Amino acid sequence: MATIDLNADLGESTAGNPVADDQAMLQLVSSANIACGFHAGDARTMSSTVKTAEQQGVAIGAHVAYNDPAGFGRRFMDYDPAELADEVLYQIGALDAFARAHGTDVRYVKPHGALYNAIVHHRAQAQAVIDGIAAFNRELAVMLLPGGVAVEVAEHAGLSVIAEAFADRGYNPDGSLVKRGTPGALLTDPEAVAERVRRIAEDGSIVAIDGSVLHVGAQSVCVHGDSPSSVQLTEAVVAALQREDVSIRSVL
Amino acid sequence: MATIDLNADLGESTAGNPVADDQAMLQLVSSANIACGFHAGDARTMSSTVKTAEQQGVAIGAHVAYNDPAGFGRRFMDYDPAELADEVLYQIGALDAFARAHGTDVRYVKPHGALYNAIVHHRAQAQAVIDGIAAFNRELAVMLLPGGVAVEVAEHAGLSVIAEAFADRGYNPDGSLVKRGTPGALLTDPEAVAERVRRIAEDGSIVAIDGSVLHVGAQSVCVHGDSPSSVQLTEAVVAALQREDVSIRSVL
Amino acid sequence: MATIDLNADLGESTAGNPVADDQAMLQLVSSANIACGFHAGDARTMSSTVKTAEQQGVAIGAHVAYNDPAGFGRRFMDYDPAELADEVLYQIGALDAFARAHGTDVRYVKPHGALYNAIVHHRAQAQAVIDGIAAFNRELAVMLLPGGVAVEVAEHAGLSVIAEAFADRGYNPDGSLVKRGTPGALLTDPEAVAERVRRIAEDGSIVAIDGSVLHVGAQSVCVHGDSPSSVQLTEAVVAALQREDVSIRSVL
Amino acid sequence: MATIDLNADLGESTAGNPVADDQAMLQLVSSANIACGFHAGDARTMSSTVKTAEQQGVAIGAHVAYNDPAGFGRRFMDYDPAELADEVLYQIGALDAFARAHGTDVRYVKPHGALYNAIVHHRAQAQAVIDGIAAFNRELAVMLLPGGVAVEVAEHAGLSVIAEAFADRGYNPDGSLVKRGTPGALLTDPEAVAERVRRIAEDGSIVAIDGSVLHVGAQSVCVHGDSPSSVQLTEAVVAALQREDVSIRSVL
Repeated sequence: MATIDLNADLGESTAGNPVADDQAMLQLVSSANIACGFHAGDARTMSSTVKTAEQQGVAIGAHVAYNDPAGFGRRFMDYDPAELADEVLYQIGALDAFARAHGTDVRYVKPHGALYNAIVHHRAQAQAVIDGIAAFNRELAVMLLPGGVAVEVAEHAGLSVIAEAFADRGYNPDGSLVKRGTPGALLTDPEAVAERVRRIAEDGSIVAIDGSVLHVGAQSVCVHGDSPSSVQLTEAVVAALQREDVSIRSVL
Repeated sequence: MATIDLNADLGESTAGNPVADDQAMLQLVSSANIACGFHAGDARTMSSTVKTAEQQGVAIGAHVAYNDPAGFGRRFMDYDPAELADEVLYQIGALDAFARAHGTDVRYVKPHGALYNAIVHHRAQAQAVIDGIAAFNRELAVMLLPGGVAVEVAEHAGLSVIAEAFADRGYNPDGSLVKRGTPGALLTDPEAVAERVRRIAEDGSIVAIDGSVLHVGAQSVCVHGDSPSSVQLTEAVVAALQREDVSIRSVL
Repeated sequence: MATIDLNADLGESTAGNPVADDQAMLQLVSSANIACGFHAGDARTMSSTVKTAEQQGVAIGAHVAYNDPAGFGRRFMDYDPAELADEVLYQIGALDAFARAHGTDVRYVKPHGALYNAIVHHRAQAQAVIDGIAAFNRELAVMLLPGGVAVEVAEHAGLSVIAEAFADRGYNPDGSLVKRGTPGALLTDPEAVAERVRRIAEDGSIVAIDGSVLHVGAQSVCVHGDSPSSVQLTEAVVAALQREDVSIRSVL
Repeated sequence: MATIDLNADLGESTAGNPVADDQAMLQLVSSANIACGFHAGDARTMSSTVKTAEQQGVAIGAHVAYNDPAGFGRRFMDYDPAELADEVLYQIGALDAFARAHGTDVRYVKPHGALYNAIVHHRAQAQAVIDGIAAFNRELAVMLLPGGVAVEVAEHAGLSVIAEAFADRGYNPDGSLVKRGTPGALLTDPEAVAERVRRIAEDGSIVAIDGSVLHVGAQSVCVHGDSPSSVQLTEAVVAALQREDVSIRSVL
């Protein structure tokens, strides 16, 4: 039977103001990328998100980010690599304390936002992220965009890589994402999104906007929960996968 | 041979701006209360402070605080206890990641500033601090002012308490500290400070400003390193203890 | 013709994450309490909120708060009064820059959250808030709960006070609010809320939960916009006021 | 008689921890670049620094920065230009409130750290900074490195530019600064520094490390106060200027 990992960015509520419907999403996904207080989230949110994830059998990932709450971690920052490595380590440790308190563990790390994008090509920052992860625990996996420098650095360091794809983003023939605001940037039809996920579950491939097939070996698909319609879209995807007997579960 | 634990508040540098002479102090003390980024400190400072502490054989403590960098954790804040417990857990986890990366462990927790003072009498916050520590690891000790509510709560939870005294503060006959700005609030004579510490090493007692003897059972003495003269004062204390064959070491 | 001022807490979006439907509310209210970045809000949100308020003829107020973004300004903090006065001044100045850039002015100040509640009884903080306002401009009005220490301090300093009531909160016979979570704490029936506001417009009085009438001289009524149902409630209130020929406008 | 403006970065103390000897420096310089809380400083420090500057007749400048307290504003950040303009406006407004409270005005703006360096070449950020300043008051001058894109943008917007040079930094023949850590990066001999400043006072020129003369038209010279030796260096410079009858005063 085919399986697929569905992951979502969760735990981004700060000061009691919700960003996504975390409780709904934790019923649907198999992996939770939990914010660690640097781009969003706080100790209270981390605790409750970890607790529900553990109860639902959802794998817990540290969604590490630049220290930029004002920019939600979406702006490139020109870090000293040693400082970036230490901040990655700090964030994993903080999240792991909640996992530990709830009888479980952090299983993987996913860089967030501008950091995620930067380390596709920025070798010093990629190395810093991997160094920070390895300093905590070399058994942690790292969730990355396939094909970038960070994958190479992670594999060289002996870390497991989870190749990620996006359920609702258009892809260019070279594997990069169609820029937001451009035609084809977003898939909004639930059928198209479900077909995208089903295909990834089958053989890890993605159909680009020109119809060409990208064999990227994706193992996890990112879905969103930050609006009522995005939760519904995920529900439609989950229903379609169940009809096709595709099992949703973490690769870890 | 008598022994005494000397502890200091370290790792409070933020954004590269030094607050105390951490390198000098780590040559002198046996326990380092390391800031965790909430009242001061940052990932880079935590990493370097933990590393040096480990190399010098200094016990590592988490100096947990209210989330108030603007106030350096010196202002009482009326926390929701559950949130306070989660923030204590967050801070211990973050520091423990650096300890782990440097092959060691966090050994104890010392609340900082206004939180330290609040839990002498504020039961809900005392319980929250102890809950946060216990959620991480019940083997952690907690460093507290003797005689307060927090000691009672910690002991009830089965945590080890390290009773703390201050090397250079005047004491009232009831065991409270003479208020800053009042005559007798500060001991500045190195001989008087050394005598204070020597006496604590001997039997844990302190001479109050009226000459009465307080049998507080102090096990650790707090010294400061935030000015050249405070480092010199500590050096004088250490020299005096060596002359008297009092050994400086952590109780853990 | 009777008139009433409707005010709402706006501009609380941070890092692009909306808290209330500011655009909808600015069509309905006559006064906007705009967050200044200390409990919520940021420069981008302040700019766009001020711009729309100016275009809609809505009076601009500085919603000053404790420096506690993590707690959304909802926790009492034991400030040094001089520091609190300076922070109030800082926040007014920051908001005024946007007003100035959009060709208008800050007209009043409303303390937020825990600060609003504290200065009902905490004289030193009340004095600090009033000092901060007066240091900027003695022509600024200050919006306060009637009957507290802050009103007394403001009037003594020669500042105009706008007495505020809450559209959807239950009142005790002594003029305090029924505690949240207690029966009668919230009015949810649009008719009851409209009647509350209509009555305040008529003579500034409020009917308490025991049926007694409080003559508090309220001049402005606080409404909320942080959920779809709260916007609808405000729309119902506005429609009811229009039917009764009550005009909605700022007292300034 | 020749005159020169001496400027220094001041008001960078946060949470009561001093970074430079502001009181000593305000006796020596003619212009104070005062931090506005984004890279450093806070309301309390801004208030006291503005007050002393006003008393000493020192011109007050807003030292605007990226919103990066963790990095002291020293890291490039890839801002949305509209957000950067709004943050510049916010900072100027906040500082101006203190100037207003002390009966004076902000006279100029100097971008700090990574922002200062970025706008030498980054046109969109340069435009954003100038837009933010112009939105507050087109009478404000802007202090910049001569020769960069920001100078061009400022002059196009009709703002006065104050060309700045550095008292103790080596210059390359192209007018850029010798990179820190490279031979010749820092002038440490008080005589050499005084000669540098005297020459700028005379004709605005600088001698580069290869002996060539750069006619950069510098009008203000940046000196530092963040260590006892840097204060002494400034005192030596001031004494040398007095011997040569060079008057120290703001160009504004």
